[in-house]
Amino acid sequence: MNEFAMASAVALRTADGGGPAVFDADLDARWAVGDKLHGGYLMAVLGRAAAAAGGEHRDLLSMSASFVRPPEPGPARVEVEVLRAGRGSTQSRTRLLQDSGVCAEALAVTGPLGEEEPHWSRSEPARLPAEEDCAPSPADAPGGFRVPLMDVVDQRLDPGALGFIAGAPSMRGEIAGWQRLADGADWDPLSLLVALDMVPPVSYDLGLPGWAPTVQMSSYIRRRPAPGPVRVRMNATEVGGDRMDVAVSAWDAKDRLVAQAVQIAAVRTPR
Amino acid sequence: MNEFAMASAVALRTADGGGPAVFDADLDARWAVGDKLHGGYLMAVLGRAAAAAGGEHRDLLSMSASFVRPPEPGPARVEVEVLRAGRGSTQSRTRLLQDSGVCAEALAVTGPLGEEEPHWSRSEPARLPAEEDCAPSPADAPGGFRVPLMDVVDQRLDPGALGFIAGAPSMRGEIAGWQRLADGADWDPLSLLVALDMVPPVSYDLGLPGWAPTVQMSSYIRRRPAPGPVRVRMNATEVGGDRMDVAVSAWDAKDRLVAQAVQIAAVRTPR
Repeated sequence: MNEFAMASAVALRTADGGGPAVFDADLDARWAVGDKLHGGYLMAVLGRAAAAAGGEHRDLLSMSASFVRPPEPGPARVEVEVLRAGRGSTQSRTRLLQDSGVCAEALAVTGPLGEEEPHWSRSEPARLPAEEDCAPSPADAPGGFRVPLMDVVDQRLDPGALGFIAGAPSMRGEIAGWQRLADGADWDPLSLLVALDMVPPVSYDLGLPGWAPTVQMSSYIRRRPAPGPVRVRMNATEVGGDRMDVAVSAWDAKDRLVAQAVQIAAVRTPR
Repeated sequence: MNEFAMASAVALRTADGGGPAVFDADLDARWAVGDKLHGGYLMAVLGRAAAAAGGEHRDLLSMSASFVRPPEPGPARVEVEVLRAGRGSTQSRTRLLQDSGVCAEALAVTGPLGEEEPHWSRSEPARLPAEEDCAPSPADAPGGFRVPLMDVVDQRLDPGALGFIAGAPSMRGEIAGWQRLADGADWDPLSLLVALDMVPPVSYDLGLPGWAPTVQMSSYIRRRPAPGPVRVRMNATEVGGDRMDVAVSAWDAKDRLVAQAVQIAAVRTPR
């Protein structure tokens, strides 16, 4: 099993008749930014449980998550309640719990991911310099900030979005780059949830270097990714009232749109 | 009270100690498309209950909804469970129930909507012909299809997106227009949820005239709208695997971004 599959594994407890399906998870401290577990990773844990509880609908198609309080690495409980098992898809509610209470809650849709070509698309893959010409994101970031996630994800950012390192953000509100899983595993529908929740936040490109915790994030998996790296681009539209929206798209090595997301994050702006 | 406020009203039942707050609603058959109650309207009912249960956090900031089964007009129950009451915002889970079971479930964030100007924005309002040069959307649509919503919402669509009526969709995957509440009431943070879930679906502009039920929708309210009409634009990125993503933006009469949404809808494509 690859690193991601192990880190996001869930084990079904013996069903106790009625009520939600209950899974045990063991949250892995490496899938973290600073001391906070990564939001996309937490969604992947919830998504894996939703897929396991979805009967024949084993692919995650979409997930909308609310992040309530940061969980600690270590044991956690995942509850999945199927709201509707339809012919083409299953809708469920998932919750991540620790002793402190609900850490995250997400609405999931699972079903079969199609393999056919899109009927219509206006998606154009992000134009990026070649992977080898992009800048690797270090696990030991400037200022002594530790990003353990960068030990398990090999991310190379478009240098055009890295002005913030020298105190000269582009102010375009865009960050883009290449991502691979560091152990060489291929991306899959669940690990794409990690790729969509890119680090650093796009607010860095707007001269706002503070932590920008995700409040809600909705991710859509559009197809199974081809082997190889994914390209991911994040764009903000507006920052105001201490909130920022971020739209995210991911393309696979065959230039196909594989996943999209939108999130709203808290961000502190100068007054 | 205006029509929208009445149609989306919720009444708190006497608290029964612990558990979720329970509200009664009376779903109004006029806020419907065909015989299906409108998704944005259902989100508004859930949002009103979330705001009422949110203590001092009375403005809806964001809501992610899963539509499970279509409710019928008439009595419904809304349950709100506060997941976290923070300093700046309250996160809650809301559910809409009828005797048939859960009809919709949504994660909500409420808080105070700021009034200040954005810190940064790249939002450019949709360019539309003047309101009087756009085409009113009839409640009695071609083909005998009845859209009661158009009796309570005065919508005028950009003629550039109306080629589908003559069998010549633009194939741009875009529909845009002006909207007002028909009784003259001003838009507010909750009624914007209706404006964001525009009719017809953007798939009409792609030559796919079938019904395109929303599976999940995430809406973000960015500011309190100014009096007057709102402009709303919907864009699809890709249609494939029987699913379509739609990004929506709304601007008020002062050209300010007031709300955004993204949804994933089921859509049937020719094989």
